[in-house]
Amino acid sequence: MRWFHPVVKVYYDMPRIEEKLIIKALEDAGFKVEPINVTKTPLPLSGIQEHIALIRAVSMFRSTYTAAVLEANGIKPINSSFTIMFSGDKVLTYSVLAANNIPIPKTMITLNGESAEKAYAEMGFPLVDKPPLGSWGRLVTLIRDWHEAKIVIEHRSMFNTPQMKVHIVQEYVKMPENRDIRCFIIGDRCLGCIYRKPSEGEWRSNVALGGKVEALENCEEECELAIKAARALKGKVISIDIFESERGLIVNEVNGVPEFKGFMRATGVNVAENIAEYIKAKVKR
Amino acid sequence: MRWFHPVVKVYYDMPRIEEKLIIKALEDAGFKVEPINVTKTPLPLSGIQEHIALIRAVSMFRSTYTAAVLEANGIKPINSSFTIMFSGDKVLTYSVLAANNIPIPKTMITLNGESAEKAYAEMGFPLVDKPPLGSWGRLVTLIRDWHEAKIVIEHRSMFNTPQMKVHIVQEYVKMPENRDIRCFIIGDRCLGCIYRKPSEGEWRSNVALGGKVEALENCEEECELAIKAARALKGKVISIDIFESERGLIVNEVNGVPEFKGFMRATGVNVAENIAEYIKAKVKR
Amino acid sequence: MRWFHPVVKVYYDMPRIEEKLIIKALEDAGFKVEPINVTKTPLPLSGIQEHIALIRAVSMFRSTYTAAVLEANGIKPINSSFTIMFSGDKVLTYSVLAANNIPIPKTMITLNGESAEKAYAEMGFPLVDKPPLGSWGRLVTLIRDWHEAKIVIEHRSMFNTPQMKVHIVQEYVKMPENRDIRCFIIGDRCLGCIYRKPSEGEWRSNVALGGKVEALENCEEECELAIKAARALKGKVISIDIFESERGLIVNEVNGVPEFKGFMRATGVNVAENIAEYIKAKVKR
Amino acid sequence: MRWFHPVVKVYYDMPRIEEKLIIKALEDAGFKVEPINVTKTPLPLSGIQEHIALIRAVSMFRSTYTAAVLEANGIKPINSSFTIMFSGDKVLTYSVLAANNIPIPKTMITLNGESAEKAYAEMGFPLVDKPPLGSWGRLVTLIRDWHEAKIVIEHRSMFNTPQMKVHIVQEYVKMPENRDIRCFIIGDRCLGCIYRKPSEGEWRSNVALGGKVEALENCEEECELAIKAARALKGKVISIDIFESERGLIVNEVNGVPEFKGFMRATGVNVAENIAEYIKAKVKR
Repeated sequence: MRWFHPVVKVYYDMPRIEEKLIIKALEDAGFKVEPINVTKTPLPLSGIQEHIALIRAVSMFRSTYTAAVLEANGIKPINSSFTIMFSGDKVLTYSVLAANNIPIPKTMITLNGESAEKAYAEMGFPLVDKPPLGSWGRLVTLIRDWHEAKIVIEHRSMFNTPQMKVHIVQEYVKMPENRDIRCFIIGDRCLGCIYRKPSEGEWRSNVALGGKVEALENCEEECELAIKAARALKGKVISIDIFESERGLIVNEVNGVPEFKGFMRATGVNVAENIAEYIKAKVKR
Repeated sequence: MRWFHPVVKVYYDMPRIEEKLIIKALEDAGFKVEPINVTKTPLPLSGIQEHIALIRAVSMFRSTYTAAVLEANGIKPINSSFTIMFSGDKVLTYSVLAANNIPIPKTMITLNGESAEKAYAEMGFPLVDKPPLGSWGRLVTLIRDWHEAKIVIEHRSMFNTPQMKVHIVQEYVKMPENRDIRCFIIGDRCLGCIYRKPSEGEWRSNVALGGKVEALENCEEECELAIKAARALKGKVISIDIFESERGLIVNEVNGVPEFKGFMRATGVNVAENIAEYIKAKVKR
Repeated sequence: MRWFHPVVKVYYDMPRIEEKLIIKALEDAGFKVEPINVTKTPLPLSGIQEHIALIRAVSMFRSTYTAAVLEANGIKPINSSFTIMFSGDKVLTYSVLAANNIPIPKTMITLNGESAEKAYAEMGFPLVDKPPLGSWGRLVTLIRDWHEAKIVIEHRSMFNTPQMKVHIVQEYVKMPENRDIRCFIIGDRCLGCIYRKPSEGEWRSNVALGGKVEALENCEEECELAIKAARALKGKVISIDIFESERGLIVNEVNGVPEFKGFMRATGVNVAENIAEYIKAKVKR
Repeated sequence: MRWFHPVVKVYYDMPRIEEKLIIKALEDAGFKVEPINVTKTPLPLSGIQEHIALIRAVSMFRSTYTAAVLEANGIKPINSSFTIMFSGDKVLTYSVLAANNIPIPKTMITLNGESAEKAYAEMGFPLVDKPPLGSWGRLVTLIRDWHEAKIVIEHRSMFNTPQMKVHIVQEYVKMPENRDIRCFIIGDRCLGCIYRKPSEGEWRSNVALGGKVEALENCEEECELAIKAARALKGKVISIDIFESERGLIVNEVNGVPEFKGFMRATGVNVAENIAEYIKAKVKR
C-alpha cells in the first residue's frame, strides 16, 4: 500500500491533449502533479528541491533548457537534456545512431548550399533534403531533379538561423509499401508500433500532414531496433521512426518529447497510463 | 622512434591566425596536415577513414556538426560534439558546471521576456543578462534599472532564433579589481592564465571589445578550477573564464573552440606548439 | 435621392473591435458590406470590379499590398498604398512631413550602428532611437547615456530585416506635461484630439503600453496641424500624433490604418459612424 | 563655356564597377564629385545644403531612405524615393505599371501560403512565383507541379520578413525564343536594349545567374514601351525588363538603381557618360 504522495512536476509550454492525458494518468496513479508553464517561471540553476520531473514542452529548446536547469540542480528529468537535444537536432541524432551501429539512411551533412550541390551530385536524384531542426515533417523535401535542387538551395540560403542553412542530404529510401513505422518506447519496453501512410498527394507520412495510422501486429523486429535506438539516445520516453528498406529495417528519426495521439488511436494502448506506471515503478526502486 | 607521418585534418571555416599557427606547428611536429573547409565539403555519415581530427570552425554549429559527423564515423575528434555544443550554448555550459559542483555566478534561466521580468525582480539590479549563443561578449548586457530591463526585453523578444529569446539572468559579480581571468587547458594540463581588463568606457573584458591582456603569475588556484571545469565539459583544448568573486573563484564561461592570440601575446606561451605536442603524445600512446 | 446600395469591401486580416464597428456603421448607413480576409484571398492585378474599398489590415505590408493591387485594377482605396506605406515607415513619414514644411522633432537617419554612434554624439543624450517599422511604441527607446546607446546598437545590429537595422535618432522633446496629443482626421475634417499619458514606470504614452487617454477641449491649433499632416500624406482616414514642444506643436508620428478604441472612449465621438458618413458623402458626389 | 563646378554627391554603400565609372564620367564632365558612404554618415532630416544627388546604394532600403532624407531637405535626388521603392518592391512595381495600362504578365498577389495555393490552382502550372523583394533573380521560381508548389510554400512560410511571405504568382510567359530584353532609360531617352539569355541548366536570364547578353538592333518598339514604364515609375535612370509574349511586348521588371556592366559590354554604349551628360543638361536648364 502506498502511503506517500511524491510530487511529479510536468514542464510544458503549450498543453496538448498528450499533456492533459499524462497529468490525469499521474493523478490516477496516486501522484501529486504540479504542471509548470516554463514560459512563465524563471528557472534557477540552484535551489530547486528534488522531485520527479517530466519534460513536455513542445519547443525543443525550451525542453532542452528546462532539462539542463534541472540537471544543474542535481535532478534527473525524464528525458535528459542530452536525449532531448540529440533527438531534436537531426544531425546529432544520426551521429549518435551511426556511432552506435544502428542502421540509418545513407546520409551526408553539408553546411551550406555550395557543398549541398556537391552532395546532390554524389547522391543522385531522387533524394531527400531536410534541415537539422523541425517537427511534423516540415521542410523535409523530396528533390527529384536539379530544378528542384536549386529551389531548395536558394530558399534555404535565405534562412537566418545557422542550423537552417545546413542540409541533411539523404538517399530516398525505396520501400515495398508507401509507409513508415513508428514504435513507442518507455524505459526498456516497447509499447508497440504503428504504420503511418501519407495522405493523397503527399509523400511524407506525418500525421500533421494528414498521414493515416494503423496498428502493426507482430512487431518484435521493429521493437528490437527501436529499443536499441532509444538506448543509444538514452531516451526513457521516446518514439522511433523506422523505414523498411531493401537492406532491412533502418531508423529514420526519433522524437525525444513524443506526441502519441495517433499511436493511441491506432493501437488502443494507453500511453499516458504506461508513462505513469513507468514513473511509479521508478519511484518504488 | 616514429617513422610514419599520421594525417591530422584541421576542420575550419574562416581561417584565423590561430588556425594558421596550429597548422604550422603540426607540420613542424612531423604531421601531414590536411586543412578541410567544412563549408565546401559534404560530410558523409559513413565511410570517412580513421584520422586525427581537430575541429576549428568559428561557427559553433559548424564545429558541432563536423564533430558529430566524425563521431558517426567512429572517429573521436578534438574536441567532441558534446564539448563544443555544451561549451557553445551557455545554458548547457552552466548546467554541466553546476551539476559538477563547480562554482558559477548566481543564475536564472528564463525562456521569454515575461519570466525575465520576474527573474530581474528576484535578482535585483545591477544584473547581467545574456542569450545562450554568441561569442566575443556580444549581447552580454549589464542592466542597471527597469528602464534598461525593458529595452533588453523588448529587443530580445524581436529575435527570431528561439534560443535568442532566452535570457540568462545573472548576478553582477562584484570583483576587487575590474578584470577577469582566462586559463588555457590542453589535455589535463593548464598552460597558464591571463587577466583581461575592459577598455575605457566598456564594462566587458573581451579582447574583441578592446580588452587588455596581461599574464597572471602563480595561478595554481585558477588552474585547478579551470582543469575541473575542462573535465566537466570533457574538453581537451579549451579555455575557461574565471571571476574573482567575494565568495572565491567562480567559472563564468568556457570556450570549446578557443582563440588564443591574446593569450600568446600576454604569456609568451606558444599555444599552437602545445596543441601539436598534445596530439603527438596522444598518437604515441 | 439614392435608392441603390453600393458595395463596400472592408479588407482585413485580424478583425479588431474597430473593424467590427466600421462594418456595423456601414451597414447602418445602408451599404452592403463585404468583409474580405486578405490572407485567404488571392488578389489579382486585373479583373477586380469597381467598388468602394476600405483597407483595414493590421499588418502594414498587407494593407499596402492590398491597396496597391486595387490601384492596379483602377480602384482608389481608402487609404491609398502611398498613404499606408509612407505612414507605416517612419523614415518615409518624416521625409514627407519635412518636405511639406510640417514641424517634426530634430531627426537624423543612420543606416547602421556605426553611423548611429556618430548621430548620438552629435545629438547628445537623452535622445530617442526607433526603427522605421513597428506599432504600439515597440522598440521606441529613450537612451540616456552611452551604456544604453551600446545596448541598443548591439541588439539592433542582430536583427535580420534590413529596415530594422536602421536607426531614427531624435531629440528627446521636452514637454510642459508628460503627454502627447492624438488627433483623428477623416477627409478634410478633424474629429477631435485626445491626450495620451504614459502609465506609471513607462515613458511612452501608447495605449498598448498602458497609456491613459483624455479628451482635449478647444483643439483648433492641434487640428490645424493634423489636417496639414494628413494632407501631406494624402490620408483620408488617418490619425496624427503631436508633441507640445518648446518651439510649438510638432508632428511625431502618423497612423495610416488607425485604431480608435481609445479615442472613442475619451471623446465619445463615434469614429466608425463618421467613417461611414464620409464614404456616403463621397459616393453621392 | 562652363566656369563653375557644381557638386554631385554620389550616395553608395558597396562601390561596384558602375559607381566607379559614374564618378569618373562625372569628373570628366567637369563636376566636383563627392562620394558618400551612406553606412558611415548620419543623414539629417534638415540642414543639408542644396546639391545634385545621385543615389547608387545596392541595398534597396538604403537607397530609398537616402532619397527620402534628401527630399526632406528639399532636394530632388536622381532617382526619387518613390521611384526606388516602387521599383524595388515588385508588388508596387506591378501595381504602378498596371494602373498606367502598361502590359504586364498575368499576376495574382497572395499574402500567405494558404492563398498562394488558391492562386496556383487558378493560374495552373507551370507558373512563376517570386517574393516582392530581391535582386538578381533570387527566389524567382518556376513551379511545374504541386510537388514543387508545396516546397515553395513551405520554405517561404519560414521566412521572418513579412514581405518575403508574400507570393507574386504569375503566368509562365511563353516566348518564341528563350530570352528577355532589357532597355536602359535615362531621362526620356532610351539608350538601347539587349537580349539576355539564360545559361545552360538555368531558366532565368539574369546576368548574376550566368545569363548571356547580346545587343538588340532596331529596338524602337521595345524602347517605346520602356519609356512608358519609366514614366509610370517617374524613373530618370532606370532599366526596364521586357518579355516577348504571345500577346506582344510586356514589362516584367524594372530596376530603379540599375547595374549596367552587361549592357555596356553588349552595346558598347557608355552608360556612365550618358548619365553625366543627362545631369549636365539638367544643370544648364
